[in-house]
Amino acid sequence: MASLTIRLHPADNVVVAGADLPEGTALPDTGVVARTAIPSGHKVAVQAIAVGEPVRKYNQVIGFATAPIAPGDHVHVHNIGVGDSFERDYAFGADAHATDLVPEAERATFQGIVRPDGRVATRNYIGILTTVNCSATAARMIADQFRGNALAAYPNIDGVVALTHSYGCGMGSQGDAIDALRRTIAGYARHPNFAAVLVLGLGCEVNQIDKLVEVEGLTVGDTLQTLAIQESGGTAATVRASVERIRALLPRVNDVTRETVPASHLILALQCGGSDGYSGITANPALGHAVDLLIRNGGTAVLSETPEVYGAEHLLTRRAVSPAVGGTLVERIRWWEDYTSRTGGEMNNNPSPGNKKGGLTTILEKSLGAVAKAGTTNLVEVVRYAEPITGPGLVFMDTPGYDPVSATGQVAGGANVLCFTTGRGSVFGCKPTPSLKLATNTALFRKMPDDMDIDCGPIATGDATIEEVGRAIFQLILDTASGRKTKSEELGFGSDEFTPWQMGAVM
Amino acid sequence: MASLTIRLHPADNVVVAGADLPEGTALPDTGVVARTAIPSGHKVAVQAIAVGEPVRKYNQVIGFATAPIAPGDHVHVHNIGVGDSFERDYAFGADAHATDLVPEAERATFQGIVRPDGRVATRNYIGILTTVNCSATAARMIADQFRGNALAAYPNIDGVVALTHSYGCGMGSQGDAIDALRRTIAGYARHPNFAAVLVLGLGCEVNQIDKLVEVEGLTVGDTLQTLAIQESGGTAATVRASVERIRALLPRVNDVTRETVPASHLILALQCGGSDGYSGITANPALGHAVDLLIRNGGTAVLSETPEVYGAEHLLTRRAVSPAVGGTLVERIRWWEDYTSRTGGEMNNNPSPGNKKGGLTTILEKSLGAVAKAGTTNLVEVVRYAEPITGPGLVFMDTPGYDPVSATGQVAGGANVLCFTTGRGSVFGCKPTPSLKLATNTALFRKMPDDMDIDCGPIATGDATIEEVGRAIFQLILDTASGRKTKSEELGFGSDEFTPWQMGAVM
Ligand SMILES: [Ca+2]
Ligand SMILES: [Ca+2]
Ligand SMILES: [Ca+2]
Ligand SMILES: [Ca+2]
Ligand SMILES: [Ca+2]
Repeated sequence: MASLTIRLHPADNVVVAGADLPEGTALPDTGVVARTAIPSGHKVAVQAIAVGEPVRKYNQVIGFATAPIAPGDHVHVHNIGVGDSFERDYAFGADAHATDLVPEAERATFQGIVRPDGRVATRNYIGILTTVNCSATAARMIADQFRGNALAAYPNIDGVVALTHSYGCGMGSQGDAIDALRRTIAGYARHPNFAAVLVLGLGCEVNQIDKLVEVEGLTVGDTLQTLAIQESGGTAATVRASVERIRALLPRVNDVTRETVPASHLILALQCGGSDGYSGITANPALGHAVDLLIRNGGTAVLSETPEVYGAEHLLTRRAVSPAVGGTLVERIRWWEDYTSRTGGEMNNNPSPGNKKGGLTTILEKSLGAVAKAGTTNLVEVVRYAEPITGPGLVFMDTPGYDPVSATGQVAGGANVLCFTTGRGSVFGCKPTPSLKLATNTALFRKMPDDMDIDCGPIATGDATIEEVGRAIFQLILDTASGRKTKSEELGFGSDEFTPWQMGAVM
Repeated sequence: MASLTIRLHPADNVVVAGADLPEGTALPDTGVVARTAIPSGHKVAVQAIAVGEPVRKYNQVIGFATAPIAPGDHVHVHNIGVGDSFERDYAFGADAHATDLVPEAERATFQGIVRPDGRVATRNYIGILTTVNCSATAARMIADQFRGNALAAYPNIDGVVALTHSYGCGMGSQGDAIDALRRTIAGYARHPNFAAVLVLGLGCEVNQIDKLVEVEGLTVGDTLQTLAIQESGGTAATVRASVERIRALLPRVNDVTRETVPASHLILALQCGGSDGYSGITANPALGHAVDLLIRNGGTAVLSETPEVYGAEHLLTRRAVSPAVGGTLVERIRWWEDYTSRTGGEMNNNPSPGNKKGGLTTILEKSLGAVAKAGTTNLVEVVRYAEPITGPGLVFMDTPGYDPVSATGQVAGGANVLCFTTGRGSVFGCKPTPSLKLATNTALFRKMPDDMDIDCGPIATGDATIEEVGRAIFQLILDTASGRKTKSEELGFGSDEFTPWQMGAVM
């Protein structure tokens, strides 16, 4: 049954119109009547709010009343604002609170693959990574030899995947850019979802294999092998040698079994892309509820996409477990300001005229739409792009907003499941980590049935609550981590989405 | 028979030692005796050079004597320098001269495919191009359907190739970065080596298909089709529809014959990568001789890699056919200075201590090693990255030095053959354009026999002259343009090397 309004949290003093509401419409479950027409997606007050009092949506402050607001009033730019003092006050930890952990004995579990070092994998791949674009074709040729029925005798291997990129030369041999590239490659090399990795180089590139191994403290051996084409007799000889090496690994890589492990071994990457007006009221808050469940069960989630938080980083600093954690986030924000001023990018996350027309009033509210997918727990850690994610709890990784670049950093950091909310219909996979697609609206879910894993649209029509969909997402995360294939895995996505952040000038 | 020295041009007043020469070594064909020991790769004077007189190598000025030089003297940093006035004087056109064109009736020809609009192709591919990383996987899935024996009934089709990239979103919707990306995609879409092209988008990306078509003046029709995944029912439906569309084109695309056409239809891209001490004395000057032959036959060649010319742009401005052409090059040099100062790249093409140890004395000499591959004719045109190359004659395209990015710009500009000199052993292909690999030394040619197309090493040992190898390269260019497969085509290179220049910050 369709509902006229969406309440994003029981403690909110506004609700969102799920359709254009004529003046005089009775708002369900509130005893309140709309005092003017309320356009779809816009907010209407369900309590009186005095001047200076906070307006709450997602149980978070999206602004303060600048005029007296009566129940049933349209709440928008004419009667709320952010306020200067709020804007300047990072209030580290002001909203932090103890996490309501589920008792150990009752915690959720999944069927994972426990690696020799105790880390837990959700998939079992062999990876071919490249130092430079020049070894990309050879890497793909090697992976090609393991397509079709080549792995039929090894049912526990999910595949041999080549993750190539366009970078690695024509760049400085030191500095932020090569550091980030090295972290990314090393993060994948260490990822528990890879049982074994071959790092393939050309030989004369700036991003030298030996230096990568040394700087990142990687250990070369059976499960991390390296090869350079120029030292191996050229392309054909390198491909032959690599295929032989990988064939020799197959029996051992196949020799794994899944066992019951606690959900605390999950590191969930959060993404949104191709957002629409429903993102902030259906899929993102539903994913946020799933994240709260995961973290209450001892797990970890990682929020990213710094440009989409920009200007509203207060939302996160107030939840930081310590001034140090909050301060690291602020430092990353400052880095972006400098970076974009130098490189001609634009940092402006303010609601656009279109956003405002759709009902988004303040920069806090707009960012909350994105941040809602991270739930309500404390921010425990802030890491740089592709750095290892420790957790447990909610972690922020500094990344661009561009989906493949952002997700590549998260997977490099150790994410072993990914949830991607989308309103327009993103198609995204990120081997070796399974990627779930959460549709913000039912029309999309029906239009792209082979790509979308779950429909969050029923929240908008009142046919499901945020909590109900959030629980379904959490269960799907557990099932996926246990081996259930995502839509993007069934289709074969995940090789071409590996996109390390190219931070410097191409020379 | 091995020679002790290499003379790069008959008019030079220095020769290069092909091995470590002890003091007193008689230099062949000169009547000159080495007055000191000359390390391999270093220069020795074969004429007296007075203070202030030019030192000539490649028949070009590499510096001026700063001390009296006698025949047999070691010529290096102790007795030559560039001179301030030379450094500041672009001398537009000072060295320009009429091209010694081969009479029309005697001009070289090749077997080309004449397209309906009169342009000539050297290959006959169907291309799948993408607007954004998000459609890369689908593009490859489509191309995958035409692998193996799928084209057995269409012997005149070279393949269906997906050229994907990592960019197209997380970027500004206007400015240099998206302009360059659009030019690149449009240049490939118009390339005569593609009989037909499908441009595949996701739908919500910054780099919108409609805008690309409009801004670049492309004509959508049978041979240039477009599709967006979000408007086509998702990935699986899009792949099915695309495969059907391409299948329908196969009979017509196959219906081509090669015919004799003048070499003036060739646009030869020049690249070097993985250079070594031999690059500037074997492969590059030999390729330069081939370029002179091509241009004397009415053809076009395109030199690029601006950072490798930086500081020695005088070499090209002096050969410019007009102040306007020379000035455009200088304007691009200034752009790079600004770009790198903002983005933290480094513009420094001066000989390094290692270069100097190897015998390179001045920035002019070092750059000449790279510029030598462009031969000796006038500079007729300077274009920006991925802009259409007009010719005929020698053209400069402003690109980074990073090989795949540079070559992608050249192919977008219309290059239909590419020659790549390499000392360390680059492996490079760039569908739809055939790529020839020119080894600077015989050891490399033998070490990577499946990757290298021609051995320029015999120049260093005196077993062949620059002119002889140059003629062989020119013949190989004609044969390749006529359909003979290059080593990289036999191996299957050319999809993963498509790398549009990413000029802006990733957001
Ligand atoms: Ca987003
Ligand atoms: Ca995003
Ligand atoms: Ca590529
Ligand atoms: Ca070069
Ligand atoms: Ca290069």
